[in-house]
Amino acid sequence: MTTLDSMSVEQIRTLTTALESELELQKGNRLSLDLTRGKPSGAQLDLSNGLETALAGNYLAADGTDTRNYGTLRGIPEARELGAQIMDVPAENVICWGNSSLALMYLTAELALERGLWGDARSWQSHETPKVLTPVPGYDRHFTLSERLGLQMLNVELTDTGPDLAALEAAVKDDAGVKAIWCVPKYSNPTGCIYSDETVSAIARLPQLAAADDFVVFWDNAYAVHDFQFPRAPLKSVFDAAREAGTEDHVVIFASTSKITYASAGLGFIAASEKVLSEIEARLNVASVGPDKVNQLRHTRFLAGRLEEHMAAHAELMVPKFELVESVLRQELGELDIASWTTPAGGYFVSLDTRPGLARAVGALAAEVGLAITPPGATYPYGRDPEDRNLRIAPSFASLDDLKAAMQILVICVKLATLRDELTKRG
Amino acid sequence: MTTLDSMSVEQIRTLTTALESELELQKGNRLSLDLTRGKPSGAQLDLSNGLETALAGNYLAADGTDTRNYGTLRGIPEARELGAQIMDVPAENVICWGNSSLALMYLTAELALERGLWGDARSWQSHETPKVLTPVPGYDRHFTLSERLGLQMLNVELTDTGPDLAALEAAVKDDAGVKAIWCVPKYSNPTGCIYSDETVSAIARLPQLAAADDFVVFWDNAYAVHDFQFPRAPLKSVFDAAREAGTEDHVVIFASTSKITYASAGLGFIAASEKVLSEIEARLNVASVGPDKVNQLRHTRFLAGRLEEHMAAHAELMVPKFELVESVLRQELGELDIASWTTPAGGYFVSLDTRPGLARAVGALAAEVGLAITPPGATYPYGRDPEDRNLRIAPSFASLDDLKAAMQILVICVKLATLRDELTKRG
Repeated sequence: MTTLDSMSVEQIRTLTTALESELELQKGNRLSLDLTRGKPSGAQLDLSNGLETALAGNYLAADGTDTRNYGTLRGIPEARELGAQIMDVPAENVICWGNSSLALMYLTAELALERGLWGDARSWQSHETPKVLTPVPGYDRHFTLSERLGLQMLNVELTDTGPDLAALEAAVKDDAGVKAIWCVPKYSNPTGCIYSDETVSAIARLPQLAAADDFVVFWDNAYAVHDFQFPRAPLKSVFDAAREAGTEDHVVIFASTSKITYASAGLGFIAASEKVLSEIEARLNVASVGPDKVNQLRHTRFLAGRLEEHMAAHAELMVPKFELVESVLRQELGELDIASWTTPAGGYFVSLDTRPGLARAVGALAAEVGLAITPPGATYPYGRDPEDRNLRIAPSFASLDDLKAAMQILVICVKLATLRDELTKRG
Repeated sequence: MTTLDSMSVEQIRTLTTALESELELQKGNRLSLDLTRGKPSGAQLDLSNGLETALAGNYLAADGTDTRNYGTLRGIPEARELGAQIMDVPAENVICWGNSSLALMYLTAELALERGLWGDARSWQSHETPKVLTPVPGYDRHFTLSERLGLQMLNVELTDTGPDLAALEAAVKDDAGVKAIWCVPKYSNPTGCIYSDETVSAIARLPQLAAADDFVVFWDNAYAVHDFQFPRAPLKSVFDAAREAGTEDHVVIFASTSKITYASAGLGFIAASEKVLSEIEARLNVASVGPDKVNQLRHTRFLAGRLEEHMAAHAELMVPKFELVESVLRQELGELDIASWTTPAGGYFVSLDTRPGLARAVGALAAEVGLAITPPGATYPYGRDPEDRNLRIAPSFASLDDLKAAMQILVICVKLATLRDELTKRG
């Protein structure tokens, strides 16, 4: 085989016909395959079944708190310590709350919009059109959340070392309406890149550069400990960097154990300066008498001293799936030179770029054969991928066999869409 | 002994001196007693320790859902069924979410304010001063929540059968700014009254009478199954009544298992018409990938078929405490005829009314001796009890011995404040 560009029209026609019959054949199999969401597999969930016996009849936290009763808004000490370990911040700057970091992001963004995070007059809604910077491709739920709150999204290109720094700095400098940035600094969703030290430092300095005096860095460290190899890949501490830059009141960090223990029944964490944390706590206090501390204790007992070992067990289940994805993509798309993709060393996703204008066509072809992929466009705000080329592959949930079948269909779809497009172009 | 009114100044002086020495004596004991909050006792929490083993390694809900993974925004079927049982509504109208009904109330009130509950143009914030009716005395967290959201509170007197109906109807009829009412229909906090059938029906009809077309009844059925005697005291179904009246899109019901299982780690429930429920679900979906379904399954397995038996075990622990409170109040305040109080058949509180203008003085005296009571005024919006007479007693958390000591101090404080006041009045 050879690259598409060096193929003759005749060769392309032949290959197209072959691919069409292959796809037709697959249709007959009435498949139902799903690569849409970053869900842990059953085997991954099983790794945490020890949670069930972790309490062993002792419901008292390290400080003597009965976890079964009301109170302790910031969470029990050992849970805040676990959050500190994951987020690389001091435990005193952590609140452990709920089962969802996304819920904490919504709460924080809404608070910043409606009242501000600092107990003073600043709030985003005093600006006519508050805007948020969205490195792309990115996480669809950040976009949905921003849109719901009426935050206008401004795309910034995500490179292999994080968002394009020059673009960020230009964006915040002149427009006081630019109020925030969404960051997934490690194994970024969907590309899997890790922000470089320089990027972390530069983002920590953004609130200083910003025209807005209420700029906030949302640091969604969802995959902080979700490495495939150990010792873990390092990530510079944004909290340290912010303290050095004097911007610690403008950086809010999020994490959860959703992809460490149970996706539904884990712990959410938020970290911030004391000033911001106390505003968050005040908001939480209006609407709750405290978090589920029993689950906090269950988690800290279960993970105590063995977080890395536990994540290594996840890695053992993930690595073969990511290797399979990589090998099918390389084998089937590599030589044709019709796509590019990432090869992450952790996290939950592989990002695949087709040639421009083809992602939707690939999604449509896949759907015809019973393969669901993350809707093309979902990795961009408003569902609009300006080049219509980015696809997100989520390999974790499917079995290896299903994943193989799904990937084989996906590459057929990519090839077919590309070849048809090429034929049209060559007239 | 005899009533205060029939005592001579001399008699009052003698009694005052005796009470002052008694209180002085108690000060020496350096007590630290707390009747402030409706927290379950350790023995009550122990009743639910079976939660820990309820899963027995089986994480699948009745419909086959793996509760450990993401999704199922409305909760697993059996958890919705449990909520239905507690709230007396169809399961299809229930969402089971989080560990706090208060959080669901905040979410719903905020949604009504900012976007409305109906997917149309109606929202409270289009009115300059949205107002909410607050039956008093009432639950302080309803007031705090309303204040935070900028809802102006309008007091309505709570009688033994619920809020004063004539006052309610008058309040909603003429002012389109009156948008909602807070109700705790069974064992109301703090009086312990149960709304009569007539009251339930009348409140279900309020949205029809209201000048506002976006009036909402917040039905916080926090003590729905928290009876001291069985079979349970009946409460007319507000959902049925609303459907009869055609107002089902304007009634939202809340409950939780916070005082059934663990105060921190229970289940929250919300019930509403499908139209409203889908708006709530859409809001939840923006900020979360689903509730903690593992805890839902844990609860439904643990409580299956034995909710009433379980609540009877709570009652066995509660009844002696409520009897103690009643007996000390009757013995020490009854004959003097200087206070009135409620004798609830369920719930968590006793409401005590002193003579007007004395509640704060009682609180101050109690604090001097090391007894913390719910801050006088807390049972009224903005902390302002217009007659300064209502005190809330929360007997559940203390041991019987501590409760006895606390009650003996409390009645001394009530007597002393009243006698001093009487002496001032008689000159």
